[in-house]
Order: sequence, then structure tokens, then C-alpha cells
Amino acid sequence: MMDFSFEWIGYVAASLTTLSFLPQAIKTIKTRDTESLSFGMYAMFTAGVLMWLIYGLYIDNYAIIVANAVTFLLAAVILGFKIYNSFKNPN
Amino acid sequence: MMDFSFEWIGYVAASLTTLSFLPQAIKTIKTRDTESLSFGMYAMFTAGVLMWLIYGLYIDNYAIIVANAVTFLLAAVILGFKIYNSFKNPN
Repeated sequence: MMDFSFEWIGYVAASLTTLSFLPQAIKTIKTRDTESLSFGMYAMFTAGVLMWLIYGLYIDNYAIIVANAVTFLLAAVILGFKIYNSFKNPN
Repeated sequence: MMDFSFEWIGYVAASLTTLSFLPQAIKTIKTRDTESLSFGMYAMFTAGVLMWLIYGLYIDNYAIIVANAVTFLLAAVILGFKIYNSFKNPN
């Protein structure tokens, strides 16, 4: 039983958590600095978002598909820089 | 129409995206380094997860409440370090 006058909070929440990876991706692309980013976080998060995407395709839910396709792309770019830097500067 | 033999992928996806903030929080607490973390990301993400939590309480969905309470705590710790460091080393 949903009150649609309150449904907007779910949409705002989804937009915020999805789009939040945009400023991080922009910062990482600009500075190429990934020193304080956790590899474990981006490995788990990228894998998790990919699974959300597969799940969305499976249950045919357009909102889950679009949100996770966008987040997957952003998280994968950040993870890519983190892996590249780890190979370049191993320690 | 859901096939419950495939539902596990949603649970694994949710666990991965929720728990992924744990290694980042541990790394940030240990090193106290937040240089390459985006303030915009953590501000948006923490606000978004808080709204997910409110939404979960509103629709009375236990999974959404638990997952977002955990993530909110972890993201808030990281955001707290980012803000603290910005005040300590403004530039």
C-alpha cells in the first residue's frame, strides 16, 4: 500500500546515490590520484552494481537497469584508474 | 513473476554494494587520508542513503532499512573525515 505523494523520496534517494559517483569519477579523471581510494571498495562495488544490472535485466525493471548501468560505468572508470595506478606504482 | 532460484543474485548484489563501503571506511580510519576522495560524492551519497533509510521506514521494508542503516553509518564516517581534513588543511 503506497502513498504516491511520498514516493518522490525514493526517486530522490535513487538519483542521489546513482549520481554521487559522477563527482568522484570527474575528480579521479582530472587528478588521476587514487591514493586514498580503497581498491576493495571499488572491486566489490563494481561487481555488486554489475549484479544489480543483471538482476534488473532478469526482472525486467527499467529503473534498476538504467540506474545501475550509469553507476557501473562510473564505478568501472574509477576502478580502472585505481588498478592502473597500482601497477604503475606498486608498493 | 519471479523465479526464486534466481533471486539470490539480488541478495548478493545488495550485500556487495552495501558492504563495499566497509573496506573504504577501514582504510580512511587507518590512514586518515581523504585527498583523492570526492567531497561531492560523499555528500550526495550520504544524503541519498539517508533518504533510502527514511523511504525504507516509510514503506516498512526491513531489507532497505538494514542495508541503508549500515551504509549510512559507513558513508557518514568517511564524510566526517573528509570534512575534518578540509577544515584542517584548507587550500
